[in-house]
Amino acid sequence: MRHYGFFRSSASYRLRIGTNLKGLAVDYVPVHLSKGGGEQFAPAFAKLNPQNLVPVLEDQGRILTQSLAILEYLDETHPEPPILPRDPAGRARVRALAQIVACDIHPIDNLRVLNYLKGELKASEEATNAWYRHWVALGLASFEALLADHPDTGRFCHGDAPTLADICLVPQVFNALRFKCPVDGYPTILRIHEACQALDAFDRARPERQPDAV
Amino acid sequence: MRHYGFFRSSASYRLRIGTNLKGLAVDYVPVHLSKGGGEQFAPAFAKLNPQNLVPVLEDQGRILTQSLAILEYLDETHPEPPILPRDPAGRARVRALAQIVACDIHPIDNLRVLNYLKGELKASEEATNAWYRHWVALGLASFEALLADHPDTGRFCHGDAPTLADICLVPQVFNALRFKCPVDGYPTILRIHEACQALDAFDRARPERQPDAV
Repeated sequence: MRHYGFFRSSASYRLRIGTNLKGLAVDYVPVHLSKGGGEQFAPAFAKLNPQNLVPVLEDQGRILTQSLAILEYLDETHPEPPILPRDPAGRARVRALAQIVACDIHPIDNLRVLNYLKGELKASEEATNAWYRHWVALGLASFEALLADHPDTGRFCHGDAPTLADICLVPQVFNALRFKCPVDGYPTILRIHEACQALDAFDRARPERQPDAV
Repeated sequence: MRHYGFFRSSASYRLRIGTNLKGLAVDYVPVHLSKGGGEQFAPAFAKLNPQNLVPVLEDQGRILTQSLAILEYLDETHPEPPILPRDPAGRARVRALAQIVACDIHPIDNLRVLNYLKGELKASEEATNAWYRHWVALGLASFEALLADHPDTGRFCHGDAPTLADICLVPQVFNALRFKCPVDGYPTILRIHEACQALDAFDRARPERQPDAV
């Protein structure tokens, strides 16, 4: 199993947490993302993923893209420990939480979008940072609202074992802290983030612990 | 089963296609989205979904959010006809295609993002339209590349029956046409879009056929 990723990509970070939780042996192949000349635009990589995005997972000759799709695939092919609950309502809750991050925060704040803002729209550094924080704040506030006082919220986002929701949340909190977004208003998120970081699977997935970290 | 939606929301459009394909009886409750004073910000709706986004599905007292999570829930609770293949690799392919639209095109071009561009960043109408078309073009080009010449592409995105990938694709093509994005470069997408539109489940889901259409 081969993971084409980038230490700082939060979608790649999700996949690292997922494969660590599943105890899978993975070859990590760094793809250095940067504007214009980044390795994600190299023809060999574009052939693997025409979206020019990481992560890509290669498994038994299959090329898989999109982090949530890959994580669901791993949960189906390596069911233990599960990263989704068994009941449809619980699964829907976990997937919705994951998608708040994966659909409604991360893509809007992704590198290519920030580059477009600064390049094509001539947005200042300050305006770009304000953009970043705006979508983080909206997303995390609703994530927090869906966690707080919900009977299924436990030690982690859903019950007492980590799920896809935690896998998406932790890299998003990492990004929020990196961009100095205020996070004091999200006590449940912070509590769960801390519980996750105490687990080896999350700790080993941290960006600064990857071979391509700079 | 109650669907809180908006005729023009493409996430709500996805859900309409899904419930039509499954033959489910659904009460459609229009939530008129607009800037600032839109009904998505009304306290009663915000209580249903703190994200202030449609769709929301109410099923047996459960409140479900995020269109892809809802569609997976419906596929688990009403398995026939399936909207995901049975094999993990096929499921991963369909989910990845769906997520190209649901993560990497639609959220970046969503109403609230366009409003921020025009409001906070003072982007012109022309610059906002260019933004819209840029992300559609990137997304649809990679979607097309993943369809073209792939052995699993059939009459629809994956085989000869509609899946979650088609459910996401059709509303995105609707949006692309609405914003006059060039689509000639995507022959496989256009062929599949036409095959979908010929189905009653897709036809009845069209925005202009909804009671709240203006």
